[in-house]
Amino acid sequence: MKQAAAFEALTAETLPSRLGGTEALTSRIGTDTAGWRVREVGDGNLNLVFIVEGAKGAAVVKQALPYVRLVGESWPLPLKRSFFEYHALKRQEARAGVGTVPAIYHFDEAQALIVMEYLSPHIILRKALIEGRQLPKIAEDLGRFVARTLFRGSDLSMKARERKEDVALFADNAELCDITESLVFTDPYYEAELNSHTSPQLDGIVAELRADRDLKVEAQRLKHLFASSAETLVHGDLHSGSIMVTDEETRVIDPEFAFYGPMAFDVGMLLANFWMAYFSQAGHEAGNDRAGMRAYLLEVIVDTWSVFRSEFSNLWRTERSGMLYDRRLFEDRGDALGSEQALDRVLHSIWTDMLGFAGVEIHRRILGLAHNADFEIIEDKDLRAACETRALKFGRHIAVNRERIHGLDEINVLAGRLEKGIVS
Amino acid sequence: MKQAAAFEALTAETLPSRLGGTEALTSRIGTDTAGWRVREVGDGNLNLVFIVEGAKGAAVVKQALPYVRLVGESWPLPLKRSFFEYHALKRQEARAGVGTVPAIYHFDEAQALIVMEYLSPHIILRKALIEGRQLPKIAEDLGRFVARTLFRGSDLSMKARERKEDVALFADNAELCDITESLVFTDPYYEAELNSHTSPQLDGIVAELRADRDLKVEAQRLKHLFASSAETLVHGDLHSGSIMVTDEETRVIDPEFAFYGPMAFDVGMLLANFWMAYFSQAGHEAGNDRAGMRAYLLEVIVDTWSVFRSEFSNLWRTERSGMLYDRRLFEDRGDALGSEQALDRVLHSIWTDMLGFAGVEIHRRILGLAHNADFEIIEDKDLRAACETRALKFGRHIAVNRERIHGLDEINVLAGRLEKGIVS
Repeated sequence: MKQAAAFEALTAETLPSRLGGTEALTSRIGTDTAGWRVREVGDGNLNLVFIVEGAKGAAVVKQALPYVRLVGESWPLPLKRSFFEYHALKRQEARAGVGTVPAIYHFDEAQALIVMEYLSPHIILRKALIEGRQLPKIAEDLGRFVARTLFRGSDLSMKARERKEDVALFADNAELCDITESLVFTDPYYEAELNSHTSPQLDGIVAELRADRDLKVEAQRLKHLFASSAETLVHGDLHSGSIMVTDEETRVIDPEFAFYGPMAFDVGMLLANFWMAYFSQAGHEAGNDRAGMRAYLLEVIVDTWSVFRSEFSNLWRTERSGMLYDRRLFEDRGDALGSEQALDRVLHSIWTDMLGFAGVEIHRRILGLAHNADFEIIEDKDLRAACETRALKFGRHIAVNRERIHGLDEINVLAGRLEKGIVS
Repeated sequence: MKQAAAFEALTAETLPSRLGGTEALTSRIGTDTAGWRVREVGDGNLNLVFIVEGAKGAAVVKQALPYVRLVGESWPLPLKRSFFEYHALKRQEARAGVGTVPAIYHFDEAQALIVMEYLSPHIILRKALIEGRQLPKIAEDLGRFVARTLFRGSDLSMKARERKEDVALFADNAELCDITESLVFTDPYYEAELNSHTSPQLDGIVAELRADRDLKVEAQRLKHLFASSAETLVHGDLHSGSIMVTDEETRVIDPEFAFYGPMAFDVGMLLANFWMAYFSQAGHEAGNDRAGMRAYLLEVIVDTWSVFRSEFSNLWRTERSGMLYDRRLFEDRGDALGSEQALDRVLHSIWTDMLGFAGVEIHRRILGLAHNADFEIIEDKDLRAACETRALKFGRHIAVNRERIHGLDEINVLAGRLEKGIVS
């Protein structure tokens, strides 16, 4: 057996010589490495991402670094996140279907490197939403993606033994979970060193939120759920920067945060990012009315949840072959209504937890370490802070009141009233 | 390295020659194996248990079998449950204190064999309760044991990374979890092959319970929680047959079902076994009034929960050093009430889930595979069925109404009314 070479970060210069012998790559883009064009395009917080173009085509090479790129070598982070990303992509493709994630051509564990499909002309969903583009298919594609991955990765569908083995495998992705546990649920709610916010404009509301007992208790209860509920393989970082789109197609990328966690987490983070897109539109409005875009975003939120709910229910009725909510207790003895009653309970839990996760995700993107471009690129700090303030208040409302909110209609009405300044 | 010998079940005859060279044993009971007295005393459902007495003292040798002893070789069960038992005992001793579990002298993984302290004059708690003995210390000892093991095995106390590693380790105890998942939560609620009940006396109520939609939905929701909530290292089988007592001392034994599960599970199973002891007293009453014993049992239930609650709260206030409910958000900024609010929410969840687990535990002991001696030894089938019927109705009530029941006083009043036939 060949000794695996020690990890070495790629550069645009070394990539052709280092990967020129990788058949999974050369068969797709061509063997003439001298003619390869390589660009480093990683704009995420963690990794290197290269686009490699050759005579026959293009591919993406993603490589983990042994530290957090956004922060630097002072924050080490294990290379094995690449292993979890690879395995998550494989499972997502199997569960949600080919074409929902990038195709994987090659994985090199020692180099923490994945060679995968170059998606073109796809752009990052966040960028599209900032530009005011209305993507016609995202609600349907994403609602279906989360329903299928969450359902099929749980004891509703998997063999219990297989899920337990997979829980054990992904439990080792602890450092990435630790990032979420700290950055999403705790740091925003006290003066953590790496936090930042638009200052001084937000200083008042930030102090208010950090003194808000009900909010902090909810955030910690959600952290408790996040850390202990190993229901299903979640993507773990499903924000609008982890989604690539065209008008026709939607692809989910970057699942290195994947682990067995609560069903509601991915859905909550996803909707939170739509709500942030909504509240940030006013910052991108100069000479360019965004009323239609705002209406579109609220509709996407309603539709995503509705597709999720309907696909999840459909799988519940047709594919429930795991050990939970056993058909022998319900359908098989003529009590299909019993199974519908259980489904209502399960969806109700996902609903209330989803609202909580959405609320804290909004907060951490404005108060924590990793901010969203939606707000960040608004240069006028007063305008940015006004957008952020509305989002913060909205996040607080849905997180704290999540057990008493019944539907997205009422939530979106609230979003509209906050946006128009009718409530503040 | 010495090759591990292939597994071979011990017998009373082979034990001295096979363990005569084990210093951890001979140093305690003496080296003169010819004089050892060996008795096989296993009355559990799974394993071999020997008491070995020598010139210097005695010890217990517990060995797993590659199948379920209660059922036979047709139901294989991995030997590695012995590994989990060993590791659970070590953790319980560290978390709840020396003297709360038997001392471990030796572990042989290949032979699935644990040599441990011989507890004498301890007897099994279930036997004592059937005999009508009022043990003065069980509520305090057991309430404290569950509070300490559950708190200290969770993210309230452990380092997140260590708990995740331990979750992964114990995830491999899947076959034992599978037994609970099937036998507690599913089998009792349909005509599973291995079920049995006192027949024909219970046929009517059994049919009623298996047609009871609300009950079955709750049982499956509890199974969902059991399988997905990896909150803490639970004992996993904490019934009155897993506890050995004297008037002065209480020891918890047999944690081979240990895994990372929901906080409420051990507490629920424990209280369920006290309630079953309560409802079975009428079957042991001939010439021997059990009114005092019944009052004692209800008191034990109230006290066990009260000690649990108070010790858990104490640990919450003094030892909360894990990543959940971070002091920096509460106490450290003068908001101790915020942490009390969170504690109330956590205890409320444990409470409602505990009642659910207790309800289904009662059912499975009367309808499922593994029955309790409390009822089983009542020879008069009509009398036994009368006791069991009251317990079944009680179990159904607390499982289905668990989210709307406030305290043990009202539950124990209900138990008394069922027992006296005031409600039925």
